[in-house]
Amino acid sequence: MSSPSPLKGIFFDVDDTLYSTSEFSELARSQALDAMIAAGLGIDKQVLQVELEEVISEFTSNYEHHFDKLLLRIPKRFYRGVNPAVIVAAGVIAYHETKIRRLAPYEDAVEVLRLLSKTPLVLGIITEGLEVKQAEKLVRMRVTQFLSPGAIFISNQIGISKPNPKLYQRVCSDLNLKPSETMYVGDNPLHDIDPPNQIGMRTVRMRRGGKHYHAEGLTQPHREVQNFWDLLDYLRQELHVQV
Amino acid sequence: MSSPSPLKGIFFDVDDTLYSTSEFSELARSQALDAMIAAGLGIDKQVLQVELEEVISEFTSNYEHHFDKLLLRIPKRFYRGVNPAVIVAAGVIAYHETKIRRLAPYEDAVEVLRLLSKTPLVLGIITEGLEVKQAEKLVRMRVTQFLSPGAIFISNQIGISKPNPKLYQRVCSDLNLKPSETMYVGDNPLHDIDPPNQIGMRTVRMRRGGKHYHAEGLTQPHREVQNFWDLLDYLRQELHVQV
Repeated sequence: MSSPSPLKGIFFDVDDTLYSTSEFSELARSQALDAMIAAGLGIDKQVLQVELEEVISEFTSNYEHHFDKLLLRIPKRFYRGVNPAVIVAAGVIAYHETKIRRLAPYEDAVEVLRLLSKTPLVLGIITEGLEVKQAEKLVRMRVTQFLSPGAIFISNQIGISKPNPKLYQRVCSDLNLKPSETMYVGDNPLHDIDPPNQIGMRTVRMRRGGKHYHAEGLTQPHREVQNFWDLLDYLRQELHVQV
Repeated sequence: MSSPSPLKGIFFDVDDTLYSTSEFSELARSQALDAMIAAGLGIDKQVLQVELEEVISEFTSNYEHHFDKLLLRIPKRFYRGVNPAVIVAAGVIAYHETKIRRLAPYEDAVEVLRLLSKTPLVLGIITEGLEVKQAEKLVRMRVTQFLSPGAIFISNQIGISKPNPKLYQRVCSDLNLKPSETMYVGDNPLHDIDPPNQIGMRTVRMRRGGKHYHAEGLTQPHREVQNFWDLLDYLRQELHVQV
């Protein structure tokens, strides 16, 4: 084997990598349903949970009117005399308040990003989703301070979605980096490992929970880690990052 | 003059009646612009304020992407190297946080609604706007507890907008009240006084500030008040409401 290119840039996935998306979503949805019930929706919470899951799977998690749709599916007799907009608004408010209080990055992610931001490495984001929605997560988590200017890439802003490897190719060419000089860290083998592997990036699978925990990809990551301290060890020991 | 019908219901406008919309919007927009500047938008705040006013007047205040549009109007050299979605997200987050901390009803509105909710009067809302947006204000201000079930009417939910008097007619007929048995309290002479006057409702102009302070309507309200204590005096002294 030839000696590998020196590492010049690390890119991170957001959901279930920088924070526990699954845990946060479950909490936020649960708080929203409690608020809708308190506002006058007379239905068992478990029934609502099942129905909301269906709405999200039918309309995708990026759709912005889940609670409206949820209420449309419930017979009117379950909220007779209450304005449905008040019930929806109660859900929306509770969801937003959870976002403000509880959308937080893993502590080790913050600590390691802080350390890496003192090195010459380019630190960036490659994430799938709507631009303002994904950017809002980064701003709320206060991680933009550790990232390199111009190194945040959101699929909807670029017009290329995961798992298309062109998304990763585009990031490298925009920043004038060879794929072999970069690393991607993410939780989903099919979206975050296979495509960057295909263009010759280094890949690290963050495996600490979330819905892709048991998924298998077509190719292997260069390393699998359980948290950002493991990642730091790998960077120090095998890639000779001085940090 | 024949003896007037007894008063059975009072309906309130929301914006610049239950709370100071003008003051709140100014504050929220100012905080949002500060956050966008802090996120990397290198432009004078006053320039941004003028531009944002234009966006709002061109796209209406119910449009949901003011900050996106604002940024589209700014030459890219003023935020070079910063992802525009991060700047927009910073503005959106600051706006929402202001909403959570500062969207509060006038204290006298809460006190008087509380007193009136102990009488047999129907207490309701007739408001112009998007259903969830208007309902969100009522839930955030915690005033739905004082309102009669089924007496919140939002124009977008009914398909009739102010100043069409049919909006007021529809409210009366839905609640089985004669217009002469009802009162409407609002700040805008052309939207809140003339149309309900036209169908024979009692009207009260709330004149304590806001953009309609100097406006004149085609007809006169039955009473002009500066706050909810004035309204309470009027109800007690001239309409014999026992409260």
